[in-house]
Amino acid sequence: MKRRYLQSIIGILLLCLLLTGQLPCKEEKPEVIVIATGGTIASVKGEMGLRPAYKPEELIRAVPGLDKYAKLEGKLLLNLDSTNMQPRDWVLIAKEAKKAQDEGLRGVVITHGTDTMAYTASMLSFMIKNPKIPIVLTGAQKSIGAKNSDAPGNLTNAVQFAAYGPPGVYVVFGGKVIRGVRASKMHTGAFDTFQSINAPYVAEFVDEGNPEAFSKMLPVKKISWPKEKKDSGKTILDTKIDANVLIARLSPGFKPEWLRKYCNPGQVQGLIILGFGTGNIPNRIPLNLLPVIAEYKKKNIPVVVMSQCPYGPVEMGVYEVGEKAARLGVIPGGDMTKEAAITKLMWVLGHTKDPDEVRELMGKTQDG
Amino acid sequence: MKRRYLQSIIGILLLCLLLTGQLPCKEEKPEVIVIATGGTIASVKGEMGLRPAYKPEELIRAVPGLDKYAKLEGKLLLNLDSTNMQPRDWVLIAKEAKKAQDEGLRGVVITHGTDTMAYTASMLSFMIKNPKIPIVLTGAQKSIGAKNSDAPGNLTNAVQFAAYGPPGVYVVFGGKVIRGVRASKMHTGAFDTFQSINAPYVAEFVDEGNPEAFSKMLPVKKISWPKEKKDSGKTILDTKIDANVLIARLSPGFKPEWLRKYCNPGQVQGLIILGFGTGNIPNRIPLNLLPVIAEYKKKNIPVVVMSQCPYGPVEMGVYEVGEKAARLGVIPGGDMTKEAAITKLMWVLGHTKDPDEVRELMGKTQDG
Repeated sequence: MKRRYLQSIIGILLLCLLLTGQLPCKEEKPEVIVIATGGTIASVKGEMGLRPAYKPEELIRAVPGLDKYAKLEGKLLLNLDSTNMQPRDWVLIAKEAKKAQDEGLRGVVITHGTDTMAYTASMLSFMIKNPKIPIVLTGAQKSIGAKNSDAPGNLTNAVQFAAYGPPGVYVVFGGKVIRGVRASKMHTGAFDTFQSINAPYVAEFVDEGNPEAFSKMLPVKKISWPKEKKDSGKTILDTKIDANVLIARLSPGFKPEWLRKYCNPGQVQGLIILGFGTGNIPNRIPLNLLPVIAEYKKKNIPVVVMSQCPYGPVEMGVYEVGEKAARLGVIPGGDMTKEAAITKLMWVLGHTKDPDEVRELMGKTQDG
Repeated sequence: MKRRYLQSIIGILLLCLLLTGQLPCKEEKPEVIVIATGGTIASVKGEMGLRPAYKPEELIRAVPGLDKYAKLEGKLLLNLDSTNMQPRDWVLIAKEAKKAQDEGLRGVVITHGTDTMAYTASMLSFMIKNPKIPIVLTGAQKSIGAKNSDAPGNLTNAVQFAAYGPPGVYVVFGGKVIRGVRASKMHTGAFDTFQSINAPYVAEFVDEGNPEAFSKMLPVKKISWPKEKKDSGKTILDTKIDANVLIARLSPGFKPEWLRKYCNPGQVQGLIILGFGTGNIPNRIPLNLLPVIAEYKKKNIPVVVMSQCPYGPVEMGVYEVGEKAARLGVIPGGDMTKEAAITKLMWVLGHTKDPDEVRELMGKTQDG
């Protein structure tokens, strides 16, 4: 009787230890979810060219040894060529990533087409404030089923970073780690298509044995590693956006009436002008754009000015042709990527239409 | 009497030799004209920021030793911040460059603002067919009057290339020589802002004593030096253009009705879509752009598809989202720069509105 009583106590104690995680269990690898949304990485050749087809489990199985870094699960959320990604899809992806964090996962990998990956990465940075885990977007320029594809390498690096990297939203591609709001697709076909615009890379993948490798499980050379934040801020999922943002790319000969057509909150809620150089806007008749910009201002439609140059910041005070536009109350886009500026304005407009508030929010830190 | 007769004969002979250029005369340097159009290179600080002010003679005088390379003359054609350059100005510049060739000059240097220099360089390439002399655009990111300016170096290199380089339209900037149709302004502020897009540089400036220097007077390392053409083609100045070309830069959430507003030859004569990646166009409801593109086709307004990526060619057959648009009869922009595609479409539309002819001309060699 006494012996059976003791056995029961020991049994209960062991159970408690197991449940609280004090007892070493076989599976100690970090848990990472691979959320598939389509893209070239998952594509097969159809009658009219490539289209997404592979399921996330198939992607995982296609890279032998991938489970060395993490306990992996897959989820097929969308199956889109990312050219067809729409604002409503960003909401789905953001919710799924936040859910993974709530469920206690160590990291999230989102496989995604390259065409609009930088837009999604930027928008997730604004929609998920203070993430506590890495949310990593990756993809490929060649299908995982193709010869000499960049898919296995990118997927491996993304899983490594999701399993062992710091919290935040990132693009991991071509051996580089880029902050979500800094990524931009720069080349139609090259494997190193994603660059970190106006900011250093977060990290660069190296060989495991490389002395610069941060760890064997996360073999990166740190470049601008994010500072560890004190755990003050709760993670906030906030997916309210207004996608009525039009981009106008100027070129010589651009007519004011082309902008005037949209000068109505019923048409667009925000306008982004890709001006020249440091953010310059033509002001010479008959192609003076300042009067139509003033009309936008009058109708309380915010106008953000960016540059059509891929690199370098907007500085509207340098030239008379910038300063005159700045004095009309446009919002200079700073050193943001085009993708970050567009998605940020959509996110801000989802929260306020007040011009002063829009200006203030657009000027705040870009990490969302 | 006999002596005076002899003196006369000798005098007439000497005159003949002089006139036919057989006699060595003091001035043997190539003649180069510096046509000033304004730009940062010629700018001074005004109340509201920089604006163009220096005359071409002042630019020339500001670089001691510049006349070592050429006999220089200056002409003030325009005095614009190039943000304010308009299509009609391209016509003026093209005519002036052709006039310089007709007058027997060895080369032309056009000082120009950086903001739209690549557009002007592209358009000159189309407007001046078969130039027999180098037509060289240059400028600076800092005024010639500023400390540590890039202006003296750029102007020197431009004069060197105009005086000793091969015929063609070029941008000479930051120590590089770029074909006019390949130049693009890539950085808002950096000295090496101009890059040769999807094509090698023509040449790179090196030290005069460098073993790779082509000559002491033209100290460049040849990279993709233009082949010497047999002098078959006459130079043709053809400045007819139609500048009603609109550029639509896509982003996720782009609405078909935003394009529909211009679907009328009274609004625009040509449309350039900056699609995603290799030239992909959304075709998923409710943001399917194919129906509106079909409407353009129906109204005989040509639609050219480019990529919003700064580098790499358009290849619409790779993905289903490209192929479906291609089958509607859009014109793929190949590996052209944005600036070349826009100005080329303007030039082509100045000559024909027939869709098949537009397609054929857009596909022809980009050197104009």
